Amino acid sequence: LRTGFPEVIWGPGKTSEQIISIIHSLRESAPIVMATRISSDVAQQLLEQIPGLIYYPVARICALKSSQIPTQQGIISILTAGTADIPVAEEAAITAELCGFEVQRLWDVGVAGIHRLLSHRDLITSSDILIVVAGMEGALPSVVAGMVECPVIAVPTSIGYGVSFGGVAPLLTMLNSCATGIAVVNIDNGFGAAILAGKILRTAARLKDRVQ
Amino acid sequence: LRTGFPEVIWGPGKTSEQIISIIHSLRESAPIVMATRISSDVAQQLLEQIPGLIYYPVARICALKSSQIPTQQGIISILTAGTADIPVAEEAAITAELCGFEVQRLWDVGVAGIHRLLSHRDLITSSDILIVVAGMEGALPSVVAGMVECPVIAVPTSIGYGVSFGGVAPLLTMLNSCATGIAVVNIDNGFGAAILAGKILRTAARLKDRVQ
Amino acid sequence: LRTGFPEVIWGPGKTSEQIISIIHSLRESAPIVMATRISSDVAQQLLEQIPGLIYYPVARICALKSSQIPTQQGIISILTAGTADIPVAEEAAITAELCGFEVQRLWDVGVAGIHRLLSHRDLITSSDILIVVAGMEGALPSVVAGMVECPVIAVPTSIGYGVSFGGVAPLLTMLNSCATGIAVVNIDNGFGAAILAGKILRTAARLKDRVQ
Amino acid sequence: LRTGFPEVIWGPGKTSEQIISIIHSLRESAPIVMATRISSDVAQQLLEQIPGLIYYPVARICALKSSQIPTQQGIISILTAGTADIPVAEEAAITAELCGFEVQRLWDVGVAGIHRLLSHRDLITSSDILIVVAGMEGALPSVVAGMVECPVIAVPTSIGYGVSFGGVAPLLTMLNSCATGIAVVNIDNGFGAAILAGKILRTAARLKDRVQ
Amino acid sequence: LRTGFPEVIWGPGKTSEQIISIIHSLRESAPIVMATRISSDVAQQLLEQIPGLIYYPVARICALKSSQIPTQQGIISILTAGTADIPVAEEAAITAELCGFEVQRLWDVGVAGIHRLLSHRDLITSSDILIVVAGMEGALPSVVAGMVECPVIAVPTSIGYGVSFGGVAPLLTMLNSCATGIAVVNIDNGFGAAILAGKILRTAARLKDRVQ
Amino acid sequence: LRTGFPEVIWGPGKTSEQIISIIHSLRESAPIVMATRISSDVAQQLLEQIPGLIYYPVARICALKSSQIPTQQGIISILTAGTADIPVAEEAAITAELCGFEVQRLWDVGVAGIHRLLSHRDLITSSDILIVVAGMEGALPSVVAGMVECPVIAVPTSIGYGVSFGGVAPLLTMLNSCATGIAVVNIDNGFGAAILAGKILRTAARLKDRVQ
Amino acid sequence: LRTGFPEVIWGPGKTSEQIISIIHSLRESAPIVMATRISSDVAQQLLEQIPGLIYYPVARICALKSSQIPTQQGIISILTAGTADIPVAEEAAITAELCGFEVQRLWDVGVAGIHRLLSHRDLITSSDILIVVAGMEGALPSVVAGMVECPVIAVPTSIGYGVSFGGVAPLLTMLNSCATGIAVVNIDNGFGAAILAGKILRTAARLKDRVQ
Amino acid sequence: LRTGFPEVIWGPGKTSEQIISIIHSLRESAPIVMATRISSDVAQQLLEQIPGLIYYPVARICALKSSQIPTQQGIISILTAGTADIPVAEEAAITAELCGFEVQRLWDVGVAGIHRLLSHRDLITSSDILIVVAGMEGALPSVVAGMVECPVIAVPTSIGYGVSFGGVAPLLTMLNSCATGIAVVNIDNGFGAAILAGKILRTAARLKDRVQ
Ligand SMILES: Nc1ncnc2c1ncn2[C@@H]1O[C@H](COP(=O)(O)O)[C@@H](O)[C@H]1O
Ligand SMILES: Nc1ncnc2c1ncn2[C@@H]1O[C@H](COP(=O)(O)O)[C@@H](O)[C@H]1O
Ligand SMILES: Nc1ncnc2c1ncn2[C@@H]1O[C@H](COP(=O)(O)O)[C@@H](O)[C@H]1O
Ligand SMILES: Nc1ncnc2c1ncn2[C@@H]1O[C@H](COP(=O)(O)O)[C@@H](O)[C@H]1O
Ligand SMILES: [Mg+2]
Ligand SMILES: [Mg+2]
Ligand SMILES: [Mg+2]
Ligand SMILES: [Mg+2]
Ligand SMILES: [Mg+2]
Ligand SMILES: [Mg+2]
Ligand SMILES: [Mg+2]
Ligand SMILES: [Mg+2]
Repeated sequence: LRTGFPEVIWGPGKTSEQIISIIHSLRESAPIVMATRISSDVAQQLLEQIPGLIYYPVARICALKSSQIPTQQGIISILTAGTADIPVAEEAAITAELCGFEVQRLWDVGVAGIHRLLSHRDLITSSDILIVVAGMEGALPSVVAGMVECPVIAVPTSIGYGVSFGGVAPLLTMLNSCATGIAVVNIDNGFGAAILAGKILRTAARLKDRVQ
Repeated sequence: LRTGFPEVIWGPGKTSEQIISIIHSLRESAPIVMATRISSDVAQQLLEQIPGLIYYPVARICALKSSQIPTQQGIISILTAGTADIPVAEEAAITAELCGFEVQRLWDVGVAGIHRLLSHRDLITSSDILIVVAGMEGALPSVVAGMVECPVIAVPTSIGYGVSFGGVAPLLTMLNSCATGIAVVNIDNGFGAAILAGKILRTAARLKDRVQ
Repeated sequence: LRTGFPEVIWGPGKTSEQIISIIHSLRESAPIVMATRISSDVAQQLLEQIPGLIYYPVARICALKSSQIPTQQGIISILTAGTADIPVAEEAAITAELCGFEVQRLWDVGVAGIHRLLSHRDLITSSDILIVVAGMEGALPSVVAGMVECPVIAVPTSIGYGVSFGGVAPLLTMLNSCATGIAVVNIDNGFGAAILAGKILRTAARLKDRVQ
Repeated sequence: LRTGFPEVIWGPGKTSEQIISIIHSLRESAPIVMATRISSDVAQQLLEQIPGLIYYPVARICALKSSQIPTQQGIISILTAGTADIPVAEEAAITAELCGFEVQRLWDVGVAGIHRLLSHRDLITSSDILIVVAGMEGALPSVVAGMVECPVIAVPTSIGYGVSFGGVAPLLTMLNSCATGIAVVNIDNGFGAAILAGKILRTAARLKDRVQ
Repeated sequence: LRTGFPEVIWGPGKTSEQIISIIHSLRESAPIVMATRISSDVAQQLLEQIPGLIYYPVARICALKSSQIPTQQGIISILTAGTADIPVAEEAAITAELCGFEVQRLWDVGVAGIHRLLSHRDLITSSDILIVVAGMEGALPSVVAGMVECPVIAVPTSIGYGVSFGGVAPLLTMLNSCATGIAVVNIDNGFGAAILAGKILRTAARLKDRVQ
Repeated sequence: LRTGFPEVIWGPGKTSEQIISIIHSLRESAPIVMATRISSDVAQQLLEQIPGLIYYPVARICALKSSQIPTQQGIISILTAGTADIPVAEEAAITAELCGFEVQRLWDVGVAGIHRLLSHRDLITSSDILIVVAGMEGALPSVVAGMVECPVIAVPTSIGYGVSFGGVAPLLTMLNSCATGIAVVNIDNGFGAAILAGKILRTAARLKDRVQ
Repeated sequence: LRTGFPEVIWGPGKTSEQIISIIHSLRESAPIVMATRISSDVAQQLLEQIPGLIYYPVARICALKSSQIPTQQGIISILTAGTADIPVAEEAAITAELCGFEVQRLWDVGVAGIHRLLSHRDLITSSDILIVVAGMEGALPSVVAGMVECPVIAVPTSIGYGVSFGGVAPLLTMLNSCATGIAVVNIDNGFGAAILAGKILRTAARLKDRVQ
Repeated sequence: LRTGFPEVIWGPGKTSEQIISIIHSLRESAPIVMATRISSDVAQQLLEQIPGLIYYPVARICALKSSQIPTQQGIISILTAGTADIPVAEEAAITAELCGFEVQRLWDVGVAGIHRLLSHRDLITSSDILIVVAGMEGALPSVVAGMVECPVIAVPTSIGYGVSFGGVAPLLTMLNSCATGIAVVNIDNGFGAAILAGKILRTAARLKDRVQ
């Protein structure tokens, strides 16, 4: 079904044995198999059992590439408001790279220091799609969406305390944004943001040419 | 900034006088000016004062087209789960058409009668992007996203009663979806869904042109 | 009061000593005694002390059958949306079997891959009652209820992350369903779903006998 | 699909013209057509246009019976905690009667006066299924389910003030009940409770005889 | 200020050293000093350091009685819906006894088995005040308040799962009760219920005789 | 059941005809019949039909006294934080007076002007029980409970805006109070507070008589 | 107590007669009397009865200035994110002016168009205190607080739809802000923001000079 | 940007190595570097690696002062309602002292014992700004704000149980306060309260200098 995308295993609640067995069953049919939300303990066991497996510790992703990943058209830029948002952003980045996309990373450009964000205007406006990751007040996607013409995928994170309510506050901020062109996904869903970005960019290849 | 899209006025809380005055001030610079959430009473007054204005009663949109809308690449299909969701879907449809996109409409294909949905598989899979509008349990985007490769924009509506909580329940369903490739917007935000679809398709078109 | 059903002990918050003592006191009067939500640690202790006790690790149920369970009329099919929902589904399945009902299991038929679900149409429509277990967006009961004439018992699970809110999101989905004939129970309440199914089937059997 | 049940129109948000037109289109194929949530104003207009239509003002249901309703097996008893819950209970009662079931009504037997409830023990225990309607604290289904062997369908109502939160409080009470055999539906959903009761009772007719 | 009541230390977040030091400083002025929410580990340390200290493990209370507790007029009956509610009920019971009141305990008389409750009618109606402790659906205070003329203090507990929301559901049930004469306190606040009961009963001693 | 208290009719959702008919049926058996939450429009119709009926417009209570109300022992003082809380406080006051209790009223002594409250210390400490009515932040019961030995019944009101959430905020304040001896009732429940106060004082009077 | 500030009447829930009477009673002692949340209907009646009264329709404030308002030190700048936020901002602005402060207004500088905001940097940084008013996602205070050294008072408004929840979403955004120096007040509380700003600026006059 | 304030590191989610490295990089440019939310374990490691570092265990702050902190004008008084609120209050106090302000501490003056609070009236009214820290019902800022002319910064804490909801209840109390001049910050945000107080006092000092 998900032609062109890696086969993906959702790690939480599965034993290493179960994950290993699923990876083995999927590797036949899929050039790339990946597993998300893998702690370093579990990863250690997987690495010992599956030759060629790679672990990305910040993204907490394991991947097995049976063949070269074909390059996809389009540049995905991924921004974070703070440094604590990086693991979610890396989950998106590694997923996007495993799908074959070029990724630009820009960390720690939150709205409370607007000039740091503005100083990266060139990188931001040179993207085909943006994934903007933010916790706490989650205001970064609103500002970024006002600066570009391309779509912005907003990922709220569970980073924060008090009334951030585990990511609900930035989620509301993103859904309520005055800016247009913002697509929102679930809290901490870096993986889902990357797949959505991939599906958006692959639309280009399928686009019917109706204008003469 | 929003090059290529209509200038838009958010109707609620503005008097007809205010709306008329904003339309006049915007029509200079923008080929298309539109106002959303316009009741039929207010529309009546606008129509009397502004020659050439068109009112779409189901979508509750007024539009003034000073020139021909240039056709854009890409087909947007808009689906609703029930008939009560149609006004939100029409807000999306008219907005998309005012942006120059071809729109396919498919109403009342909710998941409780799955065969009605499946019987429209051809229309659904022939789209470049889907906008799926649903209230109550809001399950339609999950099923649709599992049937297609293109992105799905999910619009929760405030249709329902009891624990639908004015659209919060379908919003949660959409954010929690097991399917990938779903972009969620605010409750009843048909306008925002259409602009997001438009930005996605225009990005795809730019990308396609760049690659060729 | 619960004639015909096993005596049941709710495990959480009880020591192994307390559970053992309750099992001993109930076994006199009841042919079947069962305890739910029993961790494998506690189960180990119970198995050492009570000869004949059986432990179902996935369902986390311990049962002591002092006599043959009389077979009951009616087939209960139990479906899950994902694999992570299986423990709740097994709690329902083992409970139903301990009540004497025939159980059909169908795991991992979530709505994001609708064809997998539809390929099991025969099993689904051959049931007298369905228990449908789903977390995350919880949309499966809506689709299933639209496919059958028999009642559907919907069990939301706490599986999910972000705005699944520990099962509240799928619970809302189920309560808001457009489909008719759906009975909802508390989050993760596989046991309660099975007893409800049992009461429904026994009522049906009584009614059928009365009519003939 | 819903063989044996009336065709149903959900009234809210539809004009009388729309409802009249849907009734006319459905009457061909269905022996009984009903519309729910019909205010007396709308009903007046329907009655003038559709000969033979009947209006049940407390239940706010309109029905058109093109033929005799075939009698169904099984007795449905419907209880309310207070008098303010009667409209929801009548929506259930009229729906059940339009489906062909015998209905027993018992109003105002809330748990704060337990002896009034207990004095009706015979009626309660002689039922094949119970629909229990309660607002405010919503405790009645728990007590009733402890008194009977048959299933109990619990309907929370929006009756109450302060922290009843439009029916959320009784809904939680019903989902959290210590008693077994309780099926919960959405707030004020008398119609859905009756259809669920009907589907449960019709299970008897389909029940395979597996015991020799 | 709190003449006649013990001096009380709230245990959570205090080290054993801190609690010991506060007990020593309070014992001068107060005949009874008590500490609540004391785990068995902490209690062990307190018992070693303070001769004469008593630990009530179920209630998790430590008490030091420097003199005989004067007997107070009035009987406080304490009921629980389930066995898991006993620790909260014991916190109330021990507090009430340390205040000098006679306490009657009645455990596990939840509303799902109404006859067990009714079989204790004599004990219940012979009380001067009732403290009713219930989790999950929290319906017991409503039924009890309908049976007696004296006030009922309702204590919701955090016992439950799913939508009991750590005691919020039974709290709402109690606040929404149709029965009159119910005083509600915070979740798990057995201590507060006992002090409120004590203040109510001591009102008798202060009551001005205005009737001739 | 409620010996010694008026028979009470809850007005909302009842027509004047229904209320009149209930008053007539109750007046036989009860010396005092009262109806709460009666708007001035409805009251007008009741006054025309029932000779001797009295309407208290601020409290929105109608009462019919067939005989002299016997005086009860105990003084109930009722305080409000603001002037907007007076209707709820008057509902409590009139109810208490119809039960035969002496009532002391003290309005507008909110905690933001603590000296106004403290200047009434004599009235406050001379009461047998206090009903404290407050909206917005709802802090008054905490301060008052710290000043007296008698029980305090706290009534949150729906007065406020923004995050007062229709009375939820003051309700939480009252349930979380650090002060002891506070009994909480539902939002705006002046009637319930008065009946609870009455039951407390009558229990105290019975206890006092028994002891003497 | 509030020396130097106007006497204030909270309008909602008061009749024009009541407001007139309070204004008359306060005018003796206070040079400035103001009333907030006054609709134009009520204002009309007040203006007819009280010579010299002024009505500010956007701010919905009535004021009676018996003497010249003494000028206070410090400049208060008030910003809004959108035009719909202006009534709340004007409530703040008029209140501040009635307190004697100089006010700078800057409307419609929301974060989705960051350059419009940045183009007013001089006005913003020349302020002694900022009141920032925003609804929907409420992100403006975060950006502004990052641009200045002075305190920012953030006022969430109830402007928005869907998951703005009547102002709760922007309130959360403001409380969760990564920027420092933000003081938050209740939703729509323009009046409170102005008084807080006034109290902050008057701190200067009282400031003890401790540095030599 | 934050000229005159320490550079601050938010501790949670950072390893000791990361914190040490950030401290080293910041110490060049900033006279004071501080880190908040540092557990004693982490602090131990920092103290071993960074000579001159100071750890404040109650406040959980580490600070490195490369030079003398210049004294700032203005006295900040910090109050707590209970003893459990002290860690949050100390976070505010140490931060304020590291900014150069004089701090007055007043612990455990909650509103349930109003005379203890009133006995400190001199200290309270001699302050230039107040930080009031309270959990549970959070009523202290309302009372204090009514006693003073200076601004009050209200800090809700997560101290409490049951319906204190981790600090949400006191937060609501503070936002809903009837008293004027209250600035609210996020739950447990002692650091933010101190920086806000510092910005207020520095603005006042600048204003005072400008005026003279
Ligand atoms: N129906 C709509 N739903 C959501 N946003 C809208 C809608 N119509 C207009 N808007 C937004 O509102 C802005 C205009 O607001 P205003 O300046 O108040 O008229 C536009 O730029 C759009 O982004
Ligand atoms: N009173 C009611 N409560 C809940 N659901 C209803 C009610 N009346 C009708 N429905 C549902 O609404 C559907 C019809 O919706 P519609 O096609 O909009 O008229 C029916 O198939 C029923 O499932
Ligand atoms: N178990 C309890 N539940 C509720 N409140 C309690 C409890 N134990 C003590 N308290 C209250 O906590 C206060 C003592 O708190 P502290 O000074 O922190 O020890 C007492 O005056 C009581 O009002
Ligand atoms: N617009 C407003 N927003 C918030 N609080 C207000 C407002 N107007 C007045 N108040 C407060 O309400 C109090 C007066 O209330 P009242 O005595 O009912 O007129 C004043 O002391 C203010 O603190
Ligand atoms: Mg952020
Ligand atoms: Mg739907
Ligand atoms: Mg699911
Ligand atoms: Mg009820
Ligand atoms: Mg219970
Ligand atoms: Mg108040
Ligand atoms: Mg905004
Ligand atoms: Mg407090």
